[in-house]
Amino acid sequence: MSRTIGILGGMGPLATLDLFEKIIRNTDVTKDQDHLPIIIYNNTKIPPRTEAYFEGEERLLPELERSAQLLERAGADFIIMPCNTSHIWIKIIKASVNIPIYSMIENTANYVQKQDSLINSQILLVATTATVNSQIYQRALQSSNNKIIIPDPDEQIIISSMIEHLKAGLTYNNPDLNSFKNILNKYKEIGVFVILGACTEIPILFPLLDKSLVMIDPNLLLAEMAVKIAKGRT
Amino acid sequence: MSRTIGILGGMGPLATLDLFEKIIRNTDVTKDQDHLPIIIYNNTKIPPRTEAYFEGEERLLPELERSAQLLERAGADFIIMPCNTSHIWIKIIKASVNIPIYSMIENTANYVQKQDSLINSQILLVATTATVNSQIYQRALQSSNNKIIIPDPDEQIIISSMIEHLKAGLTYNNPDLNSFKNILNKYKEIGVFVILGACTEIPILFPLLDKSLVMIDPNLLLAEMAVKIAKGRT
Repeated sequence: MSRTIGILGGMGPLATLDLFEKIIRNTDVTKDQDHLPIIIYNNTKIPPRTEAYFEGEERLLPELERSAQLLERAGADFIIMPCNTSHIWIKIIKASVNIPIYSMIENTANYVQKQDSLINSQILLVATTATVNSQIYQRALQSSNNKIIIPDPDEQIIISSMIEHLKAGLTYNNPDLNSFKNILNKYKEIGVFVILGACTEIPILFPLLDKSLVMIDPNLLLAEMAVKIAKGRT
Repeated sequence: MSRTIGILGGMGPLATLDLFEKIIRNTDVTKDQDHLPIIIYNNTKIPPRTEAYFEGEERLLPELERSAQLLERAGADFIIMPCNTSHIWIKIIKASVNIPIYSMIENTANYVQKQDSLINSQILLVATTATVNSQIYQRALQSSNNKIIIPDPDEQIIISSMIEHLKAGLTYNNPDLNSFKNILNKYKEIGVFVILGACTEIPILFPLLDKSLVMIDPNLLLAEMAVKIAKGRT
């Protein structure tokens, strides 16, 4: 009997959709009933995470806790969150429910440290300003042999603007895409070949980027972990 | 304040994913918070619908009712079901909850009857055997000026097999796809130019079919209706 996956989503809906699809595509099936039961709360009324990080969490935290509790009451056996930034508050959300919440950040860090091909590599952190400033990825990877590269402030402004445009549905026609490609080229020239797409909107752009780069998708890694846990294989 | 959409899904997961995506893509937004709140129960443990229709509903009905009640308790303001066949039992499911369940079948029939381009047209019903035999679409369209065409038994066997393969994840490589294209060609020669993709897996194939056909996607129509209702526009 498989466990029911709870997805605390809506941050944003496209990332939630992307995770749902990656779970379905990573489940071996021959019929509907082989698929995994999932409860998704696409809660689009959760306040913006980066704003909350810089300006105050008093509206954000109760909504995150309420969403986790809704999933628990509805019958989810564990929770995952397809939003890197929201993991800044994972301890607080965990304390509000009695079921496990598995961290996308720790899962990605575990994956990175196990890849022989990534030993001693420099990894560019492409994320929201809140994710970068909170150091959640830097801390998760601090005991690894990898070096996390942080975009400079001007580059971060472009990345943040690009993420907002992605949330508004702009992909190949994203007005910041060319500037972002230039940033990646600059880092490639100084030996940074690995991108950590640490905002769930970023991997949507991966098919449009330089194929010689190694692109890490925390949402895909989260989907693979969730399938294993739901099937009782971990 | 928008209403929360409840999706009674998992029949199958790809159709549920497809509906979720069509809701997101049909919502005008500039940021995450403009999107609609949605609770999805991807309940993959609901028994096969066609089998239940022919062999007994005693395991199916309690699971459909429990799923609707779960969505109501979790806070959904109304329910939609991205599975045509499950609408055979919509009255029973409606009776188990206190929130509305909007019918994909009635919605599609309303759409068909409002299209000037479809007046007096012959419409091929491409669906599961249970959907065809239960006459849910034939009844919903009986007062219209359209003629519903039912595939003959040999053709229905091919369509049912194709649906099972779609549920197993086979699309462009579906072993029944060529036979299905031959069926469509045969009907086209006798003046049937409109396909009603009345199993939620069928529209996944639409991009692979003869572009001169008019293809009706009940899942897309359901998404558009749900967005209007959630925004309070109906």
